[in-house]
Amino acid sequence: MDIQLRDFEQAAERLKSVVHHTEMDRVTTFSDMTGGQIYLKCENRQKTGSFKIRGASNKIAAMMERGEKVPVVASSAGNHAQGVAYAATKLGLPATIVMPKTAPIAKVQATEGYGAKVVLHGDLYDDAYAKACQICEEEGATFLHPYNDLEVIAGQGTLGLEILQDLPYVDVVIVPAGGGGLLAGVASAIKLINPRIKVYGVQAEGANAIARSFAEKKLVCTETAATIADGIAVKSPGDITVELINRYADGVLTVSDTEIADAILLLMERCKQIVEPAGATPLAAVLSGKLDVKDQRVVCVMSGGNIDVSFVQSIIERGLVARYRRIKFTATLLDKPGSLVQLLNVIADAGANILTVEHDKLNLRLNPNETNVHIACEVGGKDHGVNLIAKLRRMGYRIDLD
Amino acid sequence: MDIQLRDFEQAAERLKSVVHHTEMDRVTTFSDMTGGQIYLKCENRQKTGSFKIRGASNKIAAMMERGEKVPVVASSAGNHAQGVAYAATKLGLPATIVMPKTAPIAKVQATEGYGAKVVLHGDLYDDAYAKACQICEEEGATFLHPYNDLEVIAGQGTLGLEILQDLPYVDVVIVPAGGGGLLAGVASAIKLINPRIKVYGVQAEGANAIARSFAEKKLVCTETAATIADGIAVKSPGDITVELINRYADGVLTVSDTEIADAILLLMERCKQIVEPAGATPLAAVLSGKLDVKDQRVVCVMSGGNIDVSFVQSIIERGLVARYRRIKFTATLLDKPGSLVQLLNVIADAGANILTVEHDKLNLRLNPNETNVHIACEVGGKDHGVNLIAKLRRMGYRIDLD
Repeated sequence: MDIQLRDFEQAAERLKSVVHHTEMDRVTTFSDMTGGQIYLKCENRQKTGSFKIRGASNKIAAMMERGEKVPVVASSAGNHAQGVAYAATKLGLPATIVMPKTAPIAKVQATEGYGAKVVLHGDLYDDAYAKACQICEEEGATFLHPYNDLEVIAGQGTLGLEILQDLPYVDVVIVPAGGGGLLAGVASAIKLINPRIKVYGVQAEGANAIARSFAEKKLVCTETAATIADGIAVKSPGDITVELINRYADGVLTVSDTEIADAILLLMERCKQIVEPAGATPLAAVLSGKLDVKDQRVVCVMSGGNIDVSFVQSIIERGLVARYRRIKFTATLLDKPGSLVQLLNVIADAGANILTVEHDKLNLRLNPNETNVHIACEVGGKDHGVNLIAKLRRMGYRIDLD
Repeated sequence: MDIQLRDFEQAAERLKSVVHHTEMDRVTTFSDMTGGQIYLKCENRQKTGSFKIRGASNKIAAMMERGEKVPVVASSAGNHAQGVAYAATKLGLPATIVMPKTAPIAKVQATEGYGAKVVLHGDLYDDAYAKACQICEEEGATFLHPYNDLEVIAGQGTLGLEILQDLPYVDVVIVPAGGGGLLAGVASAIKLINPRIKVYGVQAEGANAIARSFAEKKLVCTETAATIADGIAVKSPGDITVELINRYADGVLTVSDTEIADAILLLMERCKQIVEPAGATPLAAVLSGKLDVKDQRVVCVMSGGNIDVSFVQSIIERGLVARYRRIKFTATLLDKPGSLVQLLNVIADAGANILTVEHDKLNLRLNPNETNVHIACEVGGKDHGVNLIAKLRRMGYRIDLD
């Protein structure tokens, strides 16, 4: 098992007409925050919204060059599904994607939209995988593995070539890792070209099979994979990917879901970009200080942008609470007409915007003539919130912060 | 009053070291939706998050070339503030920005972060403006108008030059319009180079002074400016901008706030980009069919990306309800132990995720042994929601949709 520079060059040649050479932006804000020169590789704006199209396209193009013009099958409810669907349609092979029945409708529609047939089967990924294998046998189709395949890995590695083209004097490249295809490809490609450059993988704390495989220098699988970063929630990385990572990478770090969520929010605010949780892990590793990048030229690979907007909403909500832009408190009032409007007037005068108001008299610590009111409101920031609470207390209100 | 191609060329030369030549992306999704070739000019990822830095930089650079090395002053709580702050600091002049006291803390901090002094004064923009004029008199400083200034307009017009460099065979360019600086600059620059190319402005329905000025061929101001697009909520456009727009633009359209919000959400989902409401107006004009772009190469200028994340959250919320991803209904239950858990079990089995549950017995139409429960939940889409409601009704629940 081996991969050579020629494999990546060949892949890059095949991919030219299929994928975007994605943009790389230097970001002053993050550079100032870390003391390094931070660049973002915007693979979130790749066709189909992630890097997965690279590996799928290289695999399918290589098959066709070998004369293997057979249908392709994949099992995935994520970015691999869309990458295979797009690449197969573009290159002229029929594709079937098997997804568990629980797959989000948006993913099913997107995959069909790229021209693939979608089969919904079973409740879990394993059921879908079994069905995909069955279809391959019945129809003489080829199963496309999402990561444990040298031609897929060579395709993902083309992302590393683009980084070196755009920033030849880069010092550090940081890549998300789940199954390990992207990390194996990028680490191999970069080290074969310039061994001086450091390449790190980043995993979620709750799905750290590759970090453990790297530490123990052998393939380690985990029992669970629990993280908001669905794109890298993998229990069993590949033997091929792990071997390449252990040979070529300089380290594999982990970040917490909170660090990932913080990075997503900052990317929205400072860079006007939507990134999925997996794609935010490299920046999370840098901003959390887990990797010291002082005086280094650093590329964080934002591997994908496919995140449901309702999840974006939860991340914003969490961020607003963490930054004291939303506060919740309980005020104890006299239970008589006019009490509530009096309280709300004070809040309005302070310029805070009410989100919810709840009356609650079921509390043993209340006097019979009192009631609690739970208030959630928007404020301008920590000082504004603190001043509002102080003002209410000065006016004699009993206030408990939630 | 006149502006010539030389003014734009000179501005482009001055801006080289200060601003980004922002990316322009062709978007397949929007092209397929409209039958045209839709390109997005990503000025939302310009330094300071908007095009305003172009005009401010050209103005300040021109002043310095003339030997006017005096402090600059602006009144703005928006993108102009940040543009002036950044440009002045970069080019080496002190800047003071006057904002109303109600300015969001984030804007104050961003402006200070770019190196300007911020003065908070009064409650309304007019108060801040008066204060800025006073500072100019006292300190011999120069007031930088946000749009009604030929050197500012020439700076904004450099955006048009970039479009022609990147897509010389463009047919239509669409630009947001508030005070009219960007539209005046882009329309003049493009028409002076290639009169074949159509240039349109887009305004919000609730702030349509330039659309009316264009229709009536004279400067018209409006009494109000009510729109979610704060960046183009302008009652009084400039006499200079309107004259140039009326001479060079091919039309000025308006879009509704709903159309703007829809475009913002689609840009997040399909293009992984955050755009402020003003910056989404050109795409809104195209997607709403107000401008027929069939078989045309069209550039929509996304003029800025500075939108508060709590507002992003509201836009997502609205979109999820509009797409039936969130539903609200009232179920009438027998008021006895176990009733609620039974209902919630049905909802859980259907795969819907509960957001809020509220008990409510204060309803004259209820029998004394009944209670209403208001439920809000997340579903996968319209079919999923309809099936859930139908199932509950089949099981005998009385359901009212909200």
